[in-house]
Amino acid sequence: MKVSIMSYSSSLSELLESIGAKEGSKLLVESEGRSFAGILMPHHDFSGEDIIVIKLKSGYNVGIRIGQDSAVKVLEHPEPKVKNKAPAERKEGLPNISLIATGGTIASNVEYRTGAVRPALSVSDLADSAPEMRGAANISGRALFSIFSENMNAEHWQELAAAVAEEINNGADGVVISHGTDTMGYTAAALSFMLGDVPKPVVIVGAQRSTDRPSSDAPSNLTAAVRFCVKGGKAGVFVVMHEALGDDSFAVHIGTRVRKMHTSRRDAFQSINVRPAALLDKDGNMKLTSEGRNIASGKAAARTKMERSTILLQYYPGMDPSLFENAMMKSKGIVIAGSGLGHVNEEMIRLIKKACDNGSLVVMTSQCLGGRTNLNVYKTGRDILSAGAIAVLDMLPETAYVKLMWALANADNVDEAKRLMMTPLAGEMSDRRSVDV
Amino acid sequence: MKVSIMSYSSSLSELLESIGAKEGSKLLVESEGRSFAGILMPHHDFSGEDIIVIKLKSGYNVGIRIGQDSAVKVLEHPEPKVKNKAPAERKEGLPNISLIATGGTIASNVEYRTGAVRPALSVSDLADSAPEMRGAANISGRALFSIFSENMNAEHWQELAAAVAEEINNGADGVVISHGTDTMGYTAAALSFMLGDVPKPVVIVGAQRSTDRPSSDAPSNLTAAVRFCVKGGKAGVFVVMHEALGDDSFAVHIGTRVRKMHTSRRDAFQSINVRPAALLDKDGNMKLTSEGRNIASGKAAARTKMERSTILLQYYPGMDPSLFENAMMKSKGIVIAGSGLGHVNEEMIRLIKKACDNGSLVVMTSQCLGGRTNLNVYKTGRDILSAGAIAVLDMLPETAYVKLMWALANADNVDEAKRLMMTPLAGEMSDRRSVDV
Repeated sequence: MKVSIMSYSSSLSELLESIGAKEGSKLLVESEGRSFAGILMPHHDFSGEDIIVIKLKSGYNVGIRIGQDSAVKVLEHPEPKVKNKAPAERKEGLPNISLIATGGTIASNVEYRTGAVRPALSVSDLADSAPEMRGAANISGRALFSIFSENMNAEHWQELAAAVAEEINNGADGVVISHGTDTMGYTAAALSFMLGDVPKPVVIVGAQRSTDRPSSDAPSNLTAAVRFCVKGGKAGVFVVMHEALGDDSFAVHIGTRVRKMHTSRRDAFQSINVRPAALLDKDGNMKLTSEGRNIASGKAAARTKMERSTILLQYYPGMDPSLFENAMMKSKGIVIAGSGLGHVNEEMIRLIKKACDNGSLVVMTSQCLGGRTNLNVYKTGRDILSAGAIAVLDMLPETAYVKLMWALANADNVDEAKRLMMTPLAGEMSDRRSVDV
Repeated sequence: MKVSIMSYSSSLSELLESIGAKEGSKLLVESEGRSFAGILMPHHDFSGEDIIVIKLKSGYNVGIRIGQDSAVKVLEHPEPKVKNKAPAERKEGLPNISLIATGGTIASNVEYRTGAVRPALSVSDLADSAPEMRGAANISGRALFSIFSENMNAEHWQELAAAVAEEINNGADGVVISHGTDTMGYTAAALSFMLGDVPKPVVIVGAQRSTDRPSSDAPSNLTAAVRFCVKGGKAGVFVVMHEALGDDSFAVHIGTRVRKMHTSRRDAFQSINVRPAALLDKDGNMKLTSEGRNIASGKAAARTKMERSTILLQYYPGMDPSLFENAMMKSKGIVIAGSGLGHVNEEMIRLIKKACDNGSLVVMTSQCLGGRTNLNVYKTGRDILSAGAIAVLDMLPETAYVKLMWALANADNVDEAKRLMMTPLAGEMSDRRSVDV
C-alpha cells in the first residue's frame, strides 16, 4: 500500500510522488485553462479528493481540481533545514536581551508552509532571522508557548508576566517578546498592569507576514525592538511594529495605548489618543517623543492576579438587554464600549443599574476609540452615572477590559477597584486633572 | 408658597428669583474662592439642596455649593425666542431640498441650555441657522423625531427610510437628514440598504457642537450637505461632516463605510477602507473622488423589513462562550468583530458551530476595522469556516450588523441571506472578485 503524501488521496499522492513533490515544494499547477504557482499545502478535510491545495505568493490558499488535462510540476524544492547550528557567540560589553517566544505569525515559518496547527519556529531560528539584532546585543531566548494569539487568555498573560520578571531578575537588560498580532494589544496592556513599575524595557513584537516570505516584517521589527531596549533608555511595556509600509521606520507604542487597526498592513499597529513613545529609522536612529520612566536598577515584580469574571460588550442601536442580562449579572466586571461620549440606550441603562446594584463594576468606554468619554454632557450620560457606572476618560475599551480584570483581583473591594480604574497606572489614560472644564 | 425655579430648593429658588435669573440665564457664581461663568441648568436630582448647576463655555456642567460667602449674579439674560417668523420665500429655479430633523446635538440648542430630556430645535430654526443653505436651494422641512441617536433603533430607521422615499416621490431633488452623531453610521448603513438604488442624494448630517455655541459645526455641515445634494450629481446615501478641524473642508462619506472615530473632534467621522466619495471646501468647490451612481429620474422605494433578532459581539481574549450562549442561541443573526483576519478562540468556535447548526447566520468581521477579513490563511479561520460562519471581506462590523438585519428579513431563507451578505449591495464591501489571490 502506498503512503499518502500530506493526507492526499491515493491518486493525488501517486501524482505528487511521481514528480518528487513534498512538504514545502513550490509547484506550478495548470488546470482548466488557468495556472497557479505556490507552495504545496496538505489536503484539506473539506476539499474534494481531486483537489490540490497550494499557498500562493500572496499568502492565500487555493484549491485546484486536478483532471485529465491538468499538469503539475515542481518549480523549487524546499531548502533543507539546517539543524544544530552552533549557538551565537557571547560578546563582551553588549547588553543582555532575553527573547521570549509565544507563537504567532512572527514564529510561523513552518506552520505557514504546511498549514499545520501550531506556529513552530525555534527561538534560535527566530534570533537568526535578524542578524542585526545579534549585532546589537547578546540574545538568549526561551519558548514559552507556541500558539496563535487569538487563543491566549489571562493564564497565558500571568505565565508571561512571571517569565518576564524572572528574566529581568536574572540579569536581562531588556526583554523582547515575540507574539501573534491578533491580541498583542491586550497582552501588552495585561503586562503593563501586572509588571507595574518594571525597571527595564519589555517590548512585544510581532509580524504581519511570516518569516518565510520575502516581504516579512519579522526581522526588521525584531531588530527595532532590540535596538529600543538597548538604546531607548526607557522602562515599561511597549509594542514595536512598522510605523509605515516600508522597512525604514518603526514605532514604539505604549503598551496600554496601542491597537491593531488593520488586518494585514505592516503598519497596522497605531497609538490611540497619544503619540508613540519613540520612532526608529532603519539604522536605529531614535526619536523619543514621550517622557516616560527611565531605566533603573532594582527587581521586577509581577502582580498577576486577574478576575476572570469580566466581560467586554460593544453597544449598538437596538441592543436588547434581555439577551445580555445573563452575561452581565454573572460578571463581576463589565466594560461597555458605548456610542459617542460613552452612551447606551435607555433599556441598557436599566440593566447597567441592575448589574451595579448586584455589586458588579460597570465601566464605560467609547467605541469611537479616539477621544474621551464624558458622562456629564448629556442626560443619557448623567443617567448612566446615576445607574452606578463609571467612565474612564480616553482609555481604550480593550485596555479597560484588561485593567478591570486586574483591578478587581488586586483591590480589596469594588470601591477600591473603582478608584484604581479612575487612576492612571501605566499610561493608559489621561490624568483626570488635565481635563478642561 | 414660593414657586421652585428649575426644581431648585426653596432657598436657592429665592436667591435666583432675587437676582432675576431664569432658564437660559448666564450667571457668574463665586464660591469658596473660585468663580465660574456659565448657563444656569436645572437642579440635578442627585445634587445636594445647596448646589447650583451651571454649564460652562466648554460644555461641561459643574455643581457649585452656595454658602454664606457665595455670590451669584446674572451676566446675561437669555435672548427671547422669536416665534412665528415668516417662512423663507420660495425662489424659482433653485432645486428643492427636503430637510428631515431627527434630533441630536445638531438640533439641541434649547436642550443644551436647559439640560432637558429632548433635543428641541425646530426645523425652521435649523434651516435659519445656515443662511448659505437657503441660498443654494429651496429648503422645506419636517421634524420626524426629537431624540438622541443612542436611543434610535430599527423602527426609527424604518420610519425614516419611508419618510425619505416619500419626500423624493413628492418631488425633492435631495434629502438632508439632521441626526445625532452617536449612531449616525448605523443609520446611514440602514438607509443605504433600505433605499437601495434611490435615484437622488440622501445626506445625513450632524454636529459635534450644538448650534448655540460659537464653535458649532452645525451650520457649515448643513450647508455642505445641501451643496453636495445640489451640485454633487450623485445618488445614494451619504454622511457629510467636517473633514478637518477648521470650518473649511468637508468630507462626503459613503453611508456604509463611515464610522465615528472620535468622541468630540469636529473631524470625528472617517471613511474606513475607502476614500470619501467627495470633498468640499468652504466655498462649495467640490472634488469627487469616487465613481458612484449618478442622479436619475424615477421613484424611490423603501424596503424596510428588518430582522430584530440580530446581535453584534466583539471578541476578546478569554471570552467565555457560556456567558454568550443565551444571546447567540436566541438570535437569528450574529455578527462577531473577531481579532485580526476574523478570528476567535477555540471555545468560541464551538459556540459558533452550535449557533450555525441551530440555523443562525454567523458573520465574521474584524475589530481592526481596517483591512479585509480572510478565513483561509490560518487554521483558526478555516475552523471558523467549517463551523458554518461566513466572512464579509472589508465590511465594517457595524455595517455588517445592520446589513444582516436587513438581509435576514428580505431573503426567503438563510442561504439567500448568506448570498446577500457576500454580495456588495450599497458600496459596503469590496467586490470579492477584486481580492488578489
